[in-house]
Amino acid sequence: MTLTASPIAVVGSVAFDTIETPIARAEEVLGGSATHFAVAASYFAPVHLVAVVGEDFPEAERDYLASRNIDLSGLEVRAGRTFRWTGRYHEDMNVRDTLDLQLNVFADFHPSLSQDVRQAPIVFLANIDPRLQDSVLEQFADPTLVACDTMNHWIDSAREPLEALLPRVDLLVLNDEEARQLSGEQNVSRAARRILELGPRSVLVKRGEYGAILFSPESVFAVPAFPLEEVFDPTGAGDTFAGGLVGYLAATGERSEGGLRRAIVYGTVLASYVVEDFGGQRLRTLTHDDIERRYRQFVALTEF
Amino acid sequence: MTLTASPIAVVGSVAFDTIETPIARAEEVLGGSATHFAVAASYFAPVHLVAVVGEDFPEAERDYLASRNIDLSGLEVRAGRTFRWTGRYHEDMNVRDTLDLQLNVFADFHPSLSQDVRQAPIVFLANIDPRLQDSVLEQFADPTLVACDTMNHWIDSAREPLEALLPRVDLLVLNDEEARQLSGEQNVSRAARRILELGPRSVLVKRGEYGAILFSPESVFAVPAFPLEEVFDPTGAGDTFAGGLVGYLAATGERSEGGLRRAIVYGTVLASYVVEDFGGQRLRTLTHDDIERRYRQFVALTEF
Repeated sequence: MTLTASPIAVVGSVAFDTIETPIARAEEVLGGSATHFAVAASYFAPVHLVAVVGEDFPEAERDYLASRNIDLSGLEVRAGRTFRWTGRYHEDMNVRDTLDLQLNVFADFHPSLSQDVRQAPIVFLANIDPRLQDSVLEQFADPTLVACDTMNHWIDSAREPLEALLPRVDLLVLNDEEARQLSGEQNVSRAARRILELGPRSVLVKRGEYGAILFSPESVFAVPAFPLEEVFDPTGAGDTFAGGLVGYLAATGERSEGGLRRAIVYGTVLASYVVEDFGGQRLRTLTHDDIERRYRQFVALTEF
Repeated sequence: MTLTASPIAVVGSVAFDTIETPIARAEEVLGGSATHFAVAASYFAPVHLVAVVGEDFPEAERDYLASRNIDLSGLEVRAGRTFRWTGRYHEDMNVRDTLDLQLNVFADFHPSLSQDVRQAPIVFLANIDPRLQDSVLEQFADPTLVACDTMNHWIDSAREPLEALLPRVDLLVLNDEEARQLSGEQNVSRAARRILELGPRSVLVKRGEYGAILFSPESVFAVPAFPLEEVFDPTGAGDTFAGGLVGYLAATGERSEGGLRRAIVYGTVLASYVVEDFGGQRLRTLTHDDIERRYRQFVALTEF
């Protein structure tokens, strides 16, 4: 599938995550929004990773990412330590607390893209400051598909730059709480309508274990999550979802409503795998056959 | 559709509900689990309503129910007042508080079924004491499909009789919180597996605005809810859902997995209408065309 696929550029964080769940704990596993997205998308298309790490970033992790057909020429290495995040999930794994956050080299991240990366037709702006998302997006020559994530922190502290960005976004990805916060509407359908008025071509509302809803001016698509008997660690599920989704669009050139729907199902499939182990561990052994098998299971799960 | 449909008997409550939502308030609208179920099911099949009301129950409401092809010969009238419930919904309408509960004539409800009702092949045991559900189920001659609802109160206070009932239940309907409580498992898929071990042939977990999941030993079916821009009042949505579901099975004679899945979609459609107005008001004007139109919209909402 990847031979004819369009390249994707992702800008976001690369981090080490320390994660506590009700079941177990993992120290400093490879994480970050751009990492999770890039690895998932790499099953479908070549990916340029635009991010920053410290001098502590191990060669073995570089090798792993490179082995996934991810171009690391945009992965800046700076004096200092890589971004660290420590979080703890509640018994209800939809809820988590951030215990510690060390931006480290990420604090001064102002990427300047290479000529090669600027040509990427497909862009994913992972969850970073909207001003940074804007300054990165400006550098692309002529992107044909721009997808964008955000979070409560930016909606709160950088609403103006976020709203200024949205008219240039084809697909805004956010969770239901963020949709409520951005729109001021409690009802998710009304929230999504309001957000569409801010300019993005479509809005995908992620609802964790409950699935997702895609809103565009002409239609709505609702899809459940893949039910799992064990959710080991939800970290990175949202970015992995976006990676599968955008990856499928890059691989197929699809931009139709039907194509976007299938892309969302691929995103659902990738996300259903990543939560089976800590951080992105599960994707280190995931095969294309695994993806296709679960896609077929998802069809069987939902058809009527 | 109703000419060849099998009759359904429902046992449960008939009540007057006083409802406060963040938007509005309604005084003493016709409610109760058996009422909501019966009205929804009546779009598909003849229904025997087994319940009790007080002498205050208005002739106009009897006429309305009778006009819906609901047999009221099992609707006992006793000295005293009809069951009253008062509840208030939070801004997040998934959460509600019971402000007042007056069982009134319902406190001594011990139905003895007529010969006619005992022949009904399809039985819905709405949310009442499991001991009462058991004593009613005993009276049926040879039911071919038994569906059953329950709630946190009975799981807490009458677990033994509830567990004794489950092996005779074909379809147990409960919400995700109840599934967790009954099984002791936080994860909904694992909770449903545990509950299946207690004996019901299948378990339908309702998740309100997030949809529903059907678990049976051989398969899982996940379905979103119909997204609405305004949920006016969720009261009765669960029983209306069950009414549409069981009604469709009664109308078609379907017992296959595919039939059960389509039945769940009809339940979803009926529930999506009932929340558009207070109590069961919306169903007073609902037509078969409305139902078929939204069924087609639901197909368009979910297909990929």
